[in-house]
Amino acid sequence: MAVQTVASTTHSVDLGPAAALSCRECGHRVPLGPVFACEECFGPLEIAYDFSGYDTEELRRRIEAGPASIWRYAPLLPVPADVAGKPNLNPGWTKLVKADNLARELGVTGGLYIKDDSGNPTHSFKDRVVAQALEAARAFGFTTLSCSSTGNLAGAVGAAAARAGFRSCVFIPHDLEQGKVVMAAIYGGELVGIEGNYDDVNRFCSELIGDPAGEGWGFVNVNLRPYYAEGSKTLAYEICEQLGWQLPDQIVVPIASGSQLTKIDKGLRELVELGLVEDRPYKIFGAQAEGCSPVSTAFKAGHDVVRPQKPNTIAKSLAIGNPADGPYVLDIARRTGGAVEDVTDEQVVDAIKLLARTEGVFAETAGGVTVGVTRKLIENGVLDPAKTTVVLNTGDGLKTLDAVAGTGLTATIRPTLDSFREAGLA
Amino acid sequence: MAVQTVASTTHSVDLGPAAALSCRECGHRVPLGPVFACEECFGPLEIAYDFSGYDTEELRRRIEAGPASIWRYAPLLPVPADVAGKPNLNPGWTKLVKADNLARELGVTGGLYIKDDSGNPTHSFKDRVVAQALEAARAFGFTTLSCSSTGNLAGAVGAAAARAGFRSCVFIPHDLEQGKVVMAAIYGGELVGIEGNYDDVNRFCSELIGDPAGEGWGFVNVNLRPYYAEGSKTLAYEICEQLGWQLPDQIVVPIASGSQLTKIDKGLRELVELGLVEDRPYKIFGAQAEGCSPVSTAFKAGHDVVRPQKPNTIAKSLAIGNPADGPYVLDIARRTGGAVEDVTDEQVVDAIKLLARTEGVFAETAGGVTVGVTRKLIENGVLDPAKTTVVLNTGDGLKTLDAVAGTGLTATIRPTLDSFREAGLA
Repeated sequence: MAVQTVASTTHSVDLGPAAALSCRECGHRVPLGPVFACEECFGPLEIAYDFSGYDTEELRRRIEAGPASIWRYAPLLPVPADVAGKPNLNPGWTKLVKADNLARELGVTGGLYIKDDSGNPTHSFKDRVVAQALEAARAFGFTTLSCSSTGNLAGAVGAAAARAGFRSCVFIPHDLEQGKVVMAAIYGGELVGIEGNYDDVNRFCSELIGDPAGEGWGFVNVNLRPYYAEGSKTLAYEICEQLGWQLPDQIVVPIASGSQLTKIDKGLRELVELGLVEDRPYKIFGAQAEGCSPVSTAFKAGHDVVRPQKPNTIAKSLAIGNPADGPYVLDIARRTGGAVEDVTDEQVVDAIKLLARTEGVFAETAGGVTVGVTRKLIENGVLDPAKTTVVLNTGDGLKTLDAVAGTGLTATIRPTLDSFREAGLA
Repeated sequence: MAVQTVASTTHSVDLGPAAALSCRECGHRVPLGPVFACEECFGPLEIAYDFSGYDTEELRRRIEAGPASIWRYAPLLPVPADVAGKPNLNPGWTKLVKADNLARELGVTGGLYIKDDSGNPTHSFKDRVVAQALEAARAFGFTTLSCSSTGNLAGAVGAAAARAGFRSCVFIPHDLEQGKVVMAAIYGGELVGIEGNYDDVNRFCSELIGDPAGEGWGFVNVNLRPYYAEGSKTLAYEICEQLGWQLPDQIVVPIASGSQLTKIDKGLRELVELGLVEDRPYKIFGAQAEGCSPVSTAFKAGHDVVRPQKPNTIAKSLAIGNPADGPYVLDIARRTGGAVEDVTDEQVVDAIKLLARTEGVFAETAGGVTVGVTRKLIENGVLDPAKTTVVLNTGDGLKTLDAVAGTGLTATIRPTLDSFREAGLA
């Protein structure tokens, strides 16, 4: 994979408290720029912040008085201070649903919550990460927003680019379902089908970044990845603020690349360091589908490395067979006393129905994975039902209707009271 | 249609400031109860409030400090004061999108806003009205929530009942599209297909209400309709608060039964009467699809009565050929200096694409109707582009994908830079 130099970043950029990029492996620091891999060791770059000078209570008041979106946390994100006034989708500040009915069914007594990210503008958590990448793209002078995607991300990038006045060019496998294609195409950007699978699409995007044809292009999940990834911290911030500035005891997070889970951990630790929440132990649990469970498999085997798998599951938004952040996820699950678990596709469907029936939340398959894993972890005695537990739903059931296509009418009758009675409905 | 007596309402109910039901035609008052038609003249009953004793500035502070949902307006709705603590979907407080890109395309200089109700829990404005009906159902001791529906309402009722712990039984035409059936069925309630069209479903529900089999059933859009309808007032409240406690100059509202438009007018007038906004003229515009335009046709002909039509349009959520509140809509459009206009299905699709391309908002067909009508009204010189204008999007494009099914890939290429260049994408 081509590694860009930082030549284009000699001008200074205003991304708020973001001070530099720092290698997660060797600690090497470089100026903020559209780069994602360390020039020394090829490790992943992430944002290093300067949070010095923040007064805890003033920061808390500022957040609480902020907008009903992720921008209430602008002082903690790689974005300029005036971000809320720029054209963007203003995602986040989604509902933390107190799931008392589900808690009863699962035997949770310590408080069970669903963080429901289907309430975002394009109905998945991807709006959070794309919003960060958009600000980085603005800062670096890019005029085209791009990505490789199989669904949620394509819609999030297309919509964000439309609102912000960027050109967009999104790459997807050419044979995606019609519904996903429509969702990605409706925002009017370029939507290019690649003859090949998702791996082929990714490989092509990496080539394009190194080519003059890709100049001026911000690939949200490639050359803007360090910024993009930070968007997931906002899930941690919101959960804690919505719990009354408290850490949850346990949190169940889906694993695709693993980035979201690592950033949620980062966000929780930042809140502790900033004094916004009281420090106390918390456990992070990772959730996968059995048909794509490389991290869960490694966790159970006690391995530090993650062996790639060929995905075969209905949970397509989590179907990354070679998750880049897998090793970090293993580390976090072990360090916090959590675990990584997986469920079958049948259990995913059951969990989608369970959540809908008990709480009126229609989750996409990824939400079925987290709810299913939560149930399994309770049954196995791994997750403590007496503790406060937050389960993430990162997407919307309307986008994965096929997974529950068997759901239907309970009866068909003629429009008469007799027919109604005959059907045993009275 | 059977008219229920008020026998079941001799016990007192706590629905906050709701004082009685009052006939919109003859003014006859009856106690709060599950009735919808006047026993004197068969006119529609609506809620009469007691807002006496409210101090304007105290009320404003209370609202602003309230939850990020319709329940911030609990003092102005037929619900108990502690409604936010009861299990419900907490809808509302959706985004008012400043649509600067769309404004440029349409030539609007006075400020253009999209009130985007796709952000509601089940992604349509129906969550607002169902939430009111749910509180009425609780107050009257109903244990089953029901409705006739062809789509959005079925999902909203199913989800609300699930969260609140009610049984639900929803009636739909038996031959609806699979996607809509899944959405309505996923929440686990009874979903009954009726062999017939939507009119047959409605007729059957009216019969069921008068039958012992329907005892204990709250039909949100029939015997709970006076409460249900009030939910649309919250659109008016939110728009004004989000504009900084100001009335918009112009507002474009879709017309199905016409109830929403009449309640938005009611909400605006209440805010003026309560002193929460300064009184000044505002114009309300109604929007229909040409294939179901009974109110628009009557408006243009100068008629006071609305002649029923047989609907034939892709805007199915607006396809009510005999709109109950049509005459009231005509009255409001004329009184405020507004108008009622319609657009073709082709214009609806164009408007959906226009809104998505300019603002990253993917509207359902009803949103295409309002945006399309706004464009037409500007072109015809009826809507003043120099005035502040709010356009409603009441649903989600994910629910009406078929309408824009022609949208797709802009190119298909092999995963190589050469192929990329050949396609003219570089």
